Amino acid sequence: MTSAKGLEGVVVAQTHISHVFGEEGRLVYRGYEINELAGKATYEEVAYLLWNGRLPSRDELDALNRQIRPMRALPDNAAALRVMKSGVDPMDALRTEISLIAALEPVKSPATLEQAMMLTARFPTVVAAFQRLRNGLEPIAPREDLSHAANYLYMLTGVVPPDNHVKSLDTYLVLLADHGMNASTFTARVIASTESDLGSAVVGAIGALKGPLHGGAPALVMDMLEEIGSASNVRPWVDNALNTHHKLMGFGHRVYKTTDPRAEVLRDMARHSSTPEFFQLAYDTEQYAIQELNRRKPDQRLYTNVEFYSAAVLNSVGLPRDLYPATFAVSRVAGWTAHVLEQGIGNRLMRPQSEYVGPQGLTFTPIEQRGMAHVYFARSHVTHPAPLGGA
Amino acid sequence: MTSAKGLEGVVVAQTHISHVFGEEGRLVYRGYEINELAGKATYEEVAYLLWNGRLPSRDELDALNRQIRPMRALPDNAAALRVMKSGVDPMDALRTEISLIAALEPVKSPATLEQAMMLTARFPTVVAAFQRLRNGLEPIAPREDLSHAANYLYMLTGVVPPDNHVKSLDTYLVLLADHGMNASTFTARVIASTESDLGSAVVGAIGALKGPLHGGAPALVMDMLEEIGSASNVRPWVDNALNTHHKLMGFGHRVYKTTDPRAEVLRDMARHSSTPEFFQLAYDTEQYAIQELNRRKPDQRLYTNVEFYSAAVLNSVGLPRDLYPATFAVSRVAGWTAHVLEQGIGNRLMRPQSEYVGPQGLTFTPIEQRGMAHVYFARSHVTHPAPLGGA
Repeated sequence: MTSAKGLEGVVVAQTHISHVFGEEGRLVYRGYEINELAGKATYEEVAYLLWNGRLPSRDELDALNRQIRPMRALPDNAAALRVMKSGVDPMDALRTEISLIAALEPVKSPATLEQAMMLTARFPTVVAAFQRLRNGLEPIAPREDLSHAANYLYMLTGVVPPDNHVKSLDTYLVLLADHGMNASTFTARVIASTESDLGSAVVGAIGALKGPLHGGAPALVMDMLEEIGSASNVRPWVDNALNTHHKLMGFGHRVYKTTDPRAEVLRDMARHSSTPEFFQLAYDTEQYAIQELNRRKPDQRLYTNVEFYSAAVLNSVGLPRDLYPATFAVSRVAGWTAHVLEQGIGNRLMRPQSEYVGPQGLTFTPIEQRGMAHVYFARSHVTHPAPLGGA
Repeated sequence: MTSAKGLEGVVVAQTHISHVFGEEGRLVYRGYEINELAGKATYEEVAYLLWNGRLPSRDELDALNRQIRPMRALPDNAAALRVMKSGVDPMDALRTEISLIAALEPVKSPATLEQAMMLTARFPTVVAAFQRLRNGLEPIAPREDLSHAANYLYMLTGVVPPDNHVKSLDTYLVLLADHGMNASTFTARVIASTESDLGSAVVGAIGALKGPLHGGAPALVMDMLEEIGSASNVRPWVDNALNTHHKLMGFGHRVYKTTDPRAEVLRDMARHSSTPEFFQLAYDTEQYAIQELNRRKPDQRLYTNVEFYSAAVLNSVGLPRDLYPATFAVSRVAGWTAHVLEQGIGNRLMRPQSEYVGPQGLTFTPIEQRGMAHVYFARSHVTHPAPLGGA
C-alpha cells in the first residue's frame, strides 16, 4: 500500500500526449516545446497534433476543417441553455448542454476521433450561445469560413473580430490545450477507465475545471488587480495581503517550481494587447509579489502561473470575466479528448484504496430503542468503540 | 515517484465513511457490518448514517423526512428530460437533468448537507420522470407520505407498490449506498478536490458509474442469464464460454478476494422474490461458474460480485433492465455526497503525475513546408527522434 493524499508524485498513467517538466519550466506537446507552437501553430493544428501525434500537412488540415467546421452548430437549438436563468454559472451551463449533446448524439463508448472533433467543435458554440441567451439575445449561428478562434469571438458578438484579437485568443487556446495529468484530465481518464463514454468523461472534466484550485482562478486574478487599482498601490497592497495571510491569485503551481512557460508567452501578449496602464499594474504586481513571496517563503518556490496573464489576455479580447473558465474549457477539451482516446488503449479501471479510520464492530439497534448514546459517535470518530448491542 | 496504473493499492484518502475488507469479504458503513444494516435499517436511516456518522433517533429520522421529502419534486418540470428522445441512455438522461438541477438551484461550493439531501431526493424523481416521458407518459409527482423506495416505484407506475417490492428495493438501496473508494466515488472526490461544487462532483460520478466496468454490469448479467435460458443449459453454456475466453458477467472484483457480502444478501432476497425457475437458473449458473473459474484460474480467486444477484432483485420489483445503472445511482448518491462532504475537510487538490513516453526536441516547421516525413511519428512514438527543423 502506498499512501498519497492529493496523489502528489504518483504516476497514474503513461502518456505520449504532453508533459510538464516542472523543475525546468517546460511544457511539451507531442515532442514540441510549447514555445515552438505558441504564436506559430493554430489551435486546429494543435488539436490535430494532440489527437494524432503529429502536425497536419496542409491537405490534412484542410480535411480536418472540412469535417470539423460543420460540427459546430447545435442541432438541439441550445435546448438546455434556454431554460437557464441569467444567474447560472457559465461552467454549469456548459456542463449541462454538453451533457445533453452527448446524450442526444449519442456519444457512445468506445471513444472515437470523430466524437472528439464533434465535442471540440461544439464547446465555443455552447459558451457563445449561453452568453447571448443570458443577455436576452438569440444565439448567432457559427460561420464555416472562420477559424476556431475567430468563429468563437464572432458568435459572441456577431462581428468578425479584428486580427489581433483572433491571434491573441488563438495563442491562448494553443497554450491551454493540454497540461499533463492535471485534475480535469485525470477526472476524464478515471471516468473513461470504467469504459464509460467520452461525453461522460468530458462532462466530468468540466466539473473539475470549474473549481477555483483549477480553472476557476483567472477571474480571481482580475478581481485582485481591480482591487489593487493602480501601479502605485502595488507594494502596500501586496505587503498587506501577505502580512494578513491573504492568498495572492495567480502564483504557485503543484508541478512548476519555476516560471510557467505559458505565463511568459502570455506576458508578452498582454504587453501588446492590454492598455499600458493595465499592463504596468499587472507587471508590477507580478514582480513585487514574486520578490516578496520568495523572500518570505524561499522553500516554496512560488512563481507566476498561467492564470495570472490569462486574465489580462482574455480581458483584452473582450471576454467577460465569468467566461474565463469556460474559455479555458474551450481550449482544454482537445487535451481531454486526446487523453480519453489514449486511456482506451490497454485500459485498466482506476480503482484506488482508502484508509478506513472510522469505527468498527457496532451492533444495529432498532430505531425505537436508540437513545442519545449514539450522539457519542457523531462527536468523535472512535476506532473501536464498545458494541452498543442491547443498550 | 510511485507508478500505479489503475491505482491498485494506492491509498488516496482517509475516510470515516465505509470500507471494503476484501480478504474477509466484509463491507462496513460507519462501523456497522453491512449485514447488520441490510434488511433492518431503511435507506433513509443509512443515508443519515453515511452523512452524519451515526444512525438517527426516531425524532431525527422524522426531521430528516420532513426536510427531504418536499425536496423530491422537480421545480424545472423535468426540462432537460423533455428534449430527450426515447433512444437516450437513462444514465445520460440522469447526468443531464441532475446537471441542470445543480445549475438552476444553484448548488454552490462548499458542499452542504442540505445540498446532499436535495440531490439524493431528486435522483428517483429524475429516473422515474425519464422512464415515463420516454414511454409517452407524463411524469407522476412524488408523494410525501411514501418512503424513498416506495415513492420511487410509485413514480414509475402510478401505483403504490406492494410491501415485498418496497422491502426488496429498500434493501438493495441500503446495500449499494457506499463502497469505499470505488471509481465513481473517487471521481466525485477528485472533482471536489478542485473546490468545485457538489453538483459537478455528482454529475461526474454518474458518468463514471455508467461504465460497464462499474455500474453498467447488472444489465449484462440479465442478458447472460437470458442467453443461458434454462438450468439444464448452464454447464454446456459456461464450459463453452470459458473455453472460448468469453467473459462471464457478475464475477470477480478488484478488492474482494472472496464472496461479496452484498451478493449473499441479494441471493437470499432473490431466492424469495424471483420465480423458482429463474432463481434456479441464476443459482446453478453462479455455483457452476465459481467452481469452474476457481478450477481454471485458482490464483485469481473469482467469486460472485454484487451485480450478479442485483439483476435478479431489480428484475423482481419490475424495473426495466436499462434502468439498473440509474437505480444503482439512486442508491450510491448518498455515498457520493457523504464523500464529497468529507473531502471538504482538510482538502488537498488531487493532481497526480504521468510518465511521459512521447518524443522530445521536435522543431516546429511551418505548415507549407511540412512533408510526408511527419507520417513517421504517427506510426511509432519514438522517444528521441532527430529534430526535423528545416527538413
